[in-house]
Amino acid sequence: MARTGRRPGNENTRESILEAARKAFAERGYDGASIRYIATSAGVDPALVHHYFGNKDQLFLAAMQAPMDPGAVLPRVLAGGIDGVGERLIRTLITIWESPAGAAFAAMVRSALQHEWMARMLREFFTSQIVRRIIKHLDIDPAEAPVRASLVASQVVGLAIARYMVKLEPLASLPNELIIKMVGGTVQRYLTEPLD
Amino acid sequence: MARTGRRPGNENTRESILEAARKAFAERGYDGASIRYIATSAGVDPALVHHYFGNKDQLFLAAMQAPMDPGAVLPRVLAGGIDGVGERLIRTLITIWESPAGAAFAAMVRSALQHEWMARMLREFFTSQIVRRIIKHLDIDPAEAPVRASLVASQVVGLAIARYMVKLEPLASLPNELIIKMVGGTVQRYLTEPLD
Repeated sequence: MARTGRRPGNENTRESILEAARKAFAERGYDGASIRYIATSAGVDPALVHHYFGNKDQLFLAAMQAPMDPGAVLPRVLAGGIDGVGERLIRTLITIWESPAGAAFAAMVRSALQHEWMARMLREFFTSQIVRRIIKHLDIDPAEAPVRASLVASQVVGLAIARYMVKLEPLASLPNELIIKMVGGTVQRYLTEPLD
Repeated sequence: MARTGRRPGNENTRESILEAARKAFAERGYDGASIRYIATSAGVDPALVHHYFGNKDQLFLAAMQAPMDPGAVLPRVLAGGIDGVGERLIRTLITIWESPAGAAFAAMVRSALQHEWMARMLREFFTSQIVRRIIKHLDIDPAEAPVRASLVASQVVGLAIARYMVKLEPLASLPNELIIKMVGGTVQRYLTEPLD
């Protein structure tokens, strides 16, 4: 997903583009860093960036070595509408965490806690890849969506860390269905319960 | 709190005891590591361990450089009974995270994600310092308490990381009272809602 260019290409060129992209996204944010700006920083033609990485979303995901593409995953989760979206989200995330992508997810979390640039990338990831899709696909007040989504993120990140990284028991051994019901219920509340 | 012996003592001796304690707790767990065993490993008299660190709980907290003493904090939070305990817990934790102890908390989380011995200490901390006190002070089924407490831990750890370490917005800027209401409600559900 994240690192597939259309062909292997020149590894040095690819790496220069990724380096320039990381710097640009961390310094300017997702919206402020254009493909053109990144290409200029890397000393290549913008067409080459598109050729290797596709669009800006895909370049961003490659730059942060994202374990999943929210553009592929979230629309499926959100498509069924607000009813049961909490359980669908947790079910989908458990599948990802228990797949080979789980290790990449853990690496991303570790990195974000050690390097401010990666924390910045994660914040940009949240706004550009998650919140916008929630607003687009779910019938919730767009003004409240960032608050609600960030509450959801706090539970989702905590579940991943406590269950899969620290392996806190009995959480680590609980049946998936119990996690999906209990934590899915939390996600549902954060998305729907009045905030005041 | 955690590192206060009754006097400064010999720093080498203190450090030897702490080293032996970390090793013993990580290898044998909280219950399996006695003060006597730790003293023998460190080549000192058990009385000296008590003299420097107090009881086993206090030695354990010193060994893991715990940012707070649950023996001082939790009874106060739990004393009011099950009603509103979720909000009381989150209110208390926010106070701790926003105090100088917050940095020690963050260091402990980082360490647990990098070093398996620290993850093990954290798991022991959870069982010996948290779950037992919940069973002692709250009127919930002791057989369900570990599951419920580990669900609470997943939300609490995630809140600390997302809000204070990654500084995810708008979570990081939300009024404390909104966090206390929304996340406190989650804690309350995890402690009281039927699990099946």
